[in-house]
Amino acid sequence: MAVTLGLDYGTNSVRALIVDCANGREIGSCVVDYPSGHQGVLLDDRDHNLARQHPGDYLVGAERAVSGALAAARQSDLGFHPDQIIGIGVDSTGSSPLPVDKNNQALALDPRFRDTLAAQCWLWKDHTGHIEAALITEKSRALRPQYVAKCGNTYSSEWWWSKILHCLNTSPEVFDAAYSWVELCDWVPAVLAGVRDPKAIKRGVCAAGHKAMYAEDWGGLPDKEFLCALNPKLADLRDRLYDKAYDAATPAGKLCAEWARRLGLREGIAIAIGEFDVHYGAIGCAVEEGVLVKVIGTSTCDCAVVSAQKTVADIPGICGIVKGAILPGFYGIEAGQSAVGDIFKWWVEVVCQGDAALHEQFTAEASQLRPGQSGLLALDWNNGNRTILVDQRLTGLILGQTLHTTRAEIYRALIEATAFGARAILERIEEYGVPVKTVVCAGGIAEKNQLLMQIYADATGREMRVARSAQACALGSAVAAAVVAGVHPDFATAQKAMTGWKDIVYKPRRADKAAYNKLYKLYMKLYDNLGGVRNVNLGRVMKDLLEIKDNATK
Amino acid sequence: MAVTLGLDYGTNSVRALIVDCANGREIGSCVVDYPSGHQGVLLDDRDHNLARQHPGDYLVGAERAVSGALAAARQSDLGFHPDQIIGIGVDSTGSSPLPVDKNNQALALDPRFRDTLAAQCWLWKDHTGHIEAALITEKSRALRPQYVAKCGNTYSSEWWWSKILHCLNTSPEVFDAAYSWVELCDWVPAVLAGVRDPKAIKRGVCAAGHKAMYAEDWGGLPDKEFLCALNPKLADLRDRLYDKAYDAATPAGKLCAEWARRLGLREGIAIAIGEFDVHYGAIGCAVEEGVLVKVIGTSTCDCAVVSAQKTVADIPGICGIVKGAILPGFYGIEAGQSAVGDIFKWWVEVVCQGDAALHEQFTAEASQLRPGQSGLLALDWNNGNRTILVDQRLTGLILGQTLHTTRAEIYRALIEATAFGARAILERIEEYGVPVKTVVCAGGIAEKNQLLMQIYADATGREMRVARSAQACALGSAVAAAVVAGVHPDFATAQKAMTGWKDIVYKPRRADKAAYNKLYKLYMKLYDNLGGVRNVNLGRVMKDLLEIKDNATK
Repeated sequence: MAVTLGLDYGTNSVRALIVDCANGREIGSCVVDYPSGHQGVLLDDRDHNLARQHPGDYLVGAERAVSGALAAARQSDLGFHPDQIIGIGVDSTGSSPLPVDKNNQALALDPRFRDTLAAQCWLWKDHTGHIEAALITEKSRALRPQYVAKCGNTYSSEWWWSKILHCLNTSPEVFDAAYSWVELCDWVPAVLAGVRDPKAIKRGVCAAGHKAMYAEDWGGLPDKEFLCALNPKLADLRDRLYDKAYDAATPAGKLCAEWARRLGLREGIAIAIGEFDVHYGAIGCAVEEGVLVKVIGTSTCDCAVVSAQKTVADIPGICGIVKGAILPGFYGIEAGQSAVGDIFKWWVEVVCQGDAALHEQFTAEASQLRPGQSGLLALDWNNGNRTILVDQRLTGLILGQTLHTTRAEIYRALIEATAFGARAILERIEEYGVPVKTVVCAGGIAEKNQLLMQIYADATGREMRVARSAQACALGSAVAAAVVAGVHPDFATAQKAMTGWKDIVYKPRRADKAAYNKLYKLYMKLYDNLGGVRNVNLGRVMKDLLEIKDNATK
Repeated sequence: MAVTLGLDYGTNSVRALIVDCANGREIGSCVVDYPSGHQGVLLDDRDHNLARQHPGDYLVGAERAVSGALAAARQSDLGFHPDQIIGIGVDSTGSSPLPVDKNNQALALDPRFRDTLAAQCWLWKDHTGHIEAALITEKSRALRPQYVAKCGNTYSSEWWWSKILHCLNTSPEVFDAAYSWVELCDWVPAVLAGVRDPKAIKRGVCAAGHKAMYAEDWGGLPDKEFLCALNPKLADLRDRLYDKAYDAATPAGKLCAEWARRLGLREGIAIAIGEFDVHYGAIGCAVEEGVLVKVIGTSTCDCAVVSAQKTVADIPGICGIVKGAILPGFYGIEAGQSAVGDIFKWWVEVVCQGDAALHEQFTAEASQLRPGQSGLLALDWNNGNRTILVDQRLTGLILGQTLHTTRAEIYRALIEATAFGARAILERIEEYGVPVKTVVCAGGIAEKNQLLMQIYADATGREMRVARSAQACALGSAVAAAVVAGVHPDFATAQKAMTGWKDIVYKPRRADKAAYNKLYKLYMKLYDNLGGVRNVNLGRVMKDLLEIKDNATK
């Protein structure tokens, strides 16, 4: 039996998953919460934009999660032995860069920087660099429009250069102490492979291409002249980063002796190149051309692929179209919504002061409503808009409330808002020639919330499928490990053997689809005017909603 | 000692107040809840627009309230005797028309119609006639633009003809059974005076002028040709209504023997003409030229007066400018916000599932916030916009929420929204030459909520005063009674003796006023675009709010 291990670094915890390469059977898994901060995240009360993580948590988390997964595997399969594991794949959140010293040790592991926030890993949802992001956008539009065109024409505060430049601007002592910076998804494989020189780290084109403006077309990372225009020290840093990034066909290295011992695995087994969680998640959801994968969690990430034989134009508002970012031989297309589950959580926990039971109560009540019956319309921008406006400086909106509007009505309106946000993304990528025949959803919300899934089907007019695995990201990492370990000749074969969808299909219902088409038009009016796209007359929006409401209650 | 009685018919209860005419001392009062319906209002689960009241409640309510007030007066003043009462004044909500038979008996008191909703009194907040209101607006704009110009150019579903026409359209059997229709504020004085013929009822110009399109300029009520264009039966009804309406200088009649017995008062004492509650309320708040009175309750009503010697232009969006509507010898100017206290109540009770204690908690938390600190902006249209958009088909809006937005922040944003709505009214009437030197507020919210009063001062940039009496409407009725009883020679003298303001003054604070000026500009952008006034670019609104928020938290 050939078995691989997927390690999935999430926002609050790390997951280890042991998978049978023959059929994708999940033999054992274990989730370990990061010990530091608030649910694993280091926060700053004075600045909601700040979100960091302690790199030590990643190392101790790997040891504990692998140990737990091995124990679980032994329990579920008496024939299992850790030596059967022949490869490791790693995915993580991103862009989550961390500063390292000359020996590839995380700066935050140095006692001098143990408590320095700027020396930690800068978690994907850290928005402290929004002023830097605006500067990078401005400079790129002026000097190197091709760079920012690949990022939907706007560079985000969530990404690599914004964060590093913000560190340079606000914590120069950390920037100066750092020899180099590494994406978390590249750093963990390098550590496991025992790489001691940051320049020797095999960097994945997934993180590089989407977030660090890397492209072979212009010789890798942004050129020094451009970086110098941002800050001369960034140009110097370029020499200590990397010249080439790799897709998942290339291994990141082999498991070193020290980490083989710490994890209880065989030395020398293959380690796949690191990718972001949703990219390997897409692989774990059986992504192929024509399939859009949505990983629905606190936020939502969308992934699609298009054969690299074809030409894919830049798509306005789509933040990354990178060859090899998901599957070798395909363009990877990434999009996302900055908050989805987080918005429902805000409504239930912060506003309504409830818990999981209240989520269930609202879901039950909201299920009784027809589209438009509440008269409400919301925008899903409580955490900004990642796609297609690429604008963190946007906020939420709820419109249409009367003196009778209930909490469950607003709960449903918030779900609908995220469905409309999903539709805006879907229609944009289709408009630019990316085919979407099937939408496959993954994540806890997709598994559990049938109301949301049906609303998504009705509001987008598409069939919704659910990924077979509840651990799609870790599974995708295990698939990549299976390919680099040579169990399967290529990703297509590996995916066919190891991944798939559940039988359930959420089909759009004709009447609800028609009602949502009307509501979506109104949503896009708000979207375009408040999002700064174009000046739309909103004078009929409330009246149109009331008419739809009157008709829905008839 | 000369004493008068004010009877104030509110939405949920009737209040009787016994007042010393020499100094306004409130000798005794009593509030009686209407026994029927939900908190006195007959509702229809299938139609949120419907709000009716049973006329029998007004009669039994008068008996009980007067009896209670007499008892209270006797207890507080051993020298008091009911025979000292020499006049009665009556005010009520409006426009609240009810159908009556040939003997001026309410149709709903006939057993045949006891349970017929259309035969009850159509409470001010009944919006079932919104389609009829649109028709009246359209026909008037086309055929008699002068009629609707006096109503801010839009006729409301809350008003007389919309309701009667809706009754005719949907309950023709009730319309046909009705000999005539009477405003509640005219009906009660007529009943007390023993008037048995609807054509003999002394109708007040307050209700007639504002709500029934009555004006001496065009010979009283709308002409038959116009009414015929709405429905020929309305033209027929005109003959059974009235030719002339009177201001408060004319009495409505004298207390008849039967009602003298039922109330325990002397037969033959003077009864003042009826006015709407806030109009007599303005008198009870010492209104005069330069004073704007705001009665802040579930909704807000604004009243001002301008000498009839002057010329007052029609003011767009201001629903009534009628000579004698408040004080004889003055134009009465009326405006209002369709929901104020009701919006806070919705937030606390419906959304946050709390009670008075939660109001207090939110008020305490919201008091700690600076203007703009929450990043929120709301529109106060949960119940439509009475002034200056005159549009019931509008709804609420909350904008600027993040994943951290608290309930108290939204509570404050809703208060601010009503303050901005108040400012829009104030600026509009000033723009058209109605001077506002002082704003005087009355009602429970003005008395109790210091946070709201300070926000109103800061957001409007005006000093806010509070009426001395907590029962300003009933007091104003008692003032009118004192004038028609001959205790005082005119209203100015009576007001000087009987009414006034509390010592407390809420002054605008410079920094908060400046912050609110910025927020008000953004509010007006939303107001104008979503209210259908003009097409405004809202692409910067969320960003501007975030900038104001960033500055406020520095």
